[in-house]
Amino acid sequence: MDRIDSVSNDRIKLAVKVATSSKHRRQTGLFFLEGLRLCRDAALTGYEIECSFVTENALEKALEDIEVILSASNRSFIVSTAVAEKITQAQTPQGVFCLCKKREIKHEFDFSGKYIALENIQDPSNFGAICRTAEALGIKGAITCGCCDIYNPKTQRAAMGSALRLPVIETADLKSTLLELSERGMELYATTPRSDADKITGICFDGGAVAVIGNEGNGVSDEIFSLCRKITIPMGGRAESLNASMAAAITMWEMMRNG
Amino acid sequence: MDRIDSVSNDRIKLAVKVATSSKHRRQTGLFFLEGLRLCRDAALTGYEIECSFVTENALEKALEDIEVILSASNRSFIVSTAVAEKITQAQTPQGVFCLCKKREIKHEFDFSGKYIALENIQDPSNFGAICRTAEALGIKGAITCGCCDIYNPKTQRAAMGSALRLPVIETADLKSTLLELSERGMELYATTPRSDADKITGICFDGGAVAVIGNEGNGVSDEIFSLCRKITIPMGGRAESLNASMAAAITMWEMMRNG
Repeated sequence: MDRIDSVSNDRIKLAVKVATSSKHRRQTGLFFLEGLRLCRDAALTGYEIECSFVTENALEKALEDIEVILSASNRSFIVSTAVAEKITQAQTPQGVFCLCKKREIKHEFDFSGKYIALENIQDPSNFGAICRTAEALGIKGAITCGCCDIYNPKTQRAAMGSALRLPVIETADLKSTLLELSERGMELYATTPRSDADKITGICFDGGAVAVIGNEGNGVSDEIFSLCRKITIPMGGRAESLNASMAAAITMWEMMRNG
Repeated sequence: MDRIDSVSNDRIKLAVKVATSSKHRRQTGLFFLEGLRLCRDAALTGYEIECSFVTENALEKALEDIEVILSASNRSFIVSTAVAEKITQAQTPQGVFCLCKKREIKHEFDFSGKYIALENIQDPSNFGAICRTAEALGIKGAITCGCCDIYNPKTQRAAMGSALRLPVIETADLKSTLLELSERGMELYATTPRSDADKITGICFDGGAVAVIGNEGNGVSDEIFSLCRKITIPMGGRAESLNASMAAAITMWEMMRNG
């Protein structure tokens, strides 16, 4: 393994750009992951790792796990502590980083399965947390439109590896995608805090279904709202207080709990 | 209103210490809030504001809301942009800050109500998110033991004001607190990913109940676990992937959904 000791090395500069700019992620087709667990998850999920960077310290501590990462990497480098501090996006760098190649998602919809659709979710932590919960609960995939970048390191961190495994199907035209799924027999639901919507506890989610979660501030757009059955999470407390990822968690749970 | 233009002003130094150190929060009995909404929530919830700081820019933009804060404040200062940048804990400061006095919680337990107990929750964002969801769902209060500081600005931000309103009852001896509540007829539950626990969907939460959520890494401690009926969230996907705040949300939702 070659060494990189200089923070102005070209590959280090590339790593920082890919980590911090979605434009660079689009241009290069790469994304940045950090931490033993996430990098290992990428390797185990079959992502091609263009380049991995590890500190000597990390190598000593976790050789076995790191070998999994190295063997999935086209190139690997030992980096100095100064370089690790340059490229880290975390407060306490673990000394394990990689640049992975994005891959195309080819998802065959399961028309009898449950999906979550995310419209304009803007907070990377919310986006990641929703992916994590979706995977945990056995949701088949997330359909996204206008959301923040799934490859943002914050999204990936909040998703704890699930964003690498869960099918995340991006669409520029959510309306058409939903209408197609509806034609294939899937029910469409939109969540809202409005109390005139149907209570989610009264819904029988027994077939294929998609539940749409809207933007953190504005909720589901009118265009999408009009296509869907409106459902609400009845609350004993202050309705305004339910965060998008929590609303998504309870919605997905209700879809799955009797399924 | 007096002006503070110097970042080395004593009150500004105090604000930074209170914002960044739980030791200083304990010593002074103060805590730090930031942002129009949170500071306004503190004023409306009846907290005594020792000192508020606003920029001229913020004052122009939101005079009406800021007046609510100023009238609950013992002292108020206009601060320069440089001072606001010094004290902010956010990436984009809103220019509204305050130092509030902590107040003692005198909570009369409702023995037929639903409570969440948090044992050693260490992540401020999780802690705050759980408070927010608890309030939204109508949970009566949170019993906490060994958790991170509720007055950490990150906790308060994630709670979006709910940590100011929800009764948060801190105990140094969770076992005794739970046993007392059990003697008063409340059911005790501990959540676990273990599949030999009772499925939460099979539990009838019709009386008073406390559900314990454990530490992010280690779950509920053995001592507390042994006092409680063990319940689990059945998952179709990867059980390890459910984050503490999401597990808490689904648990609280199940406690309340038929209540």
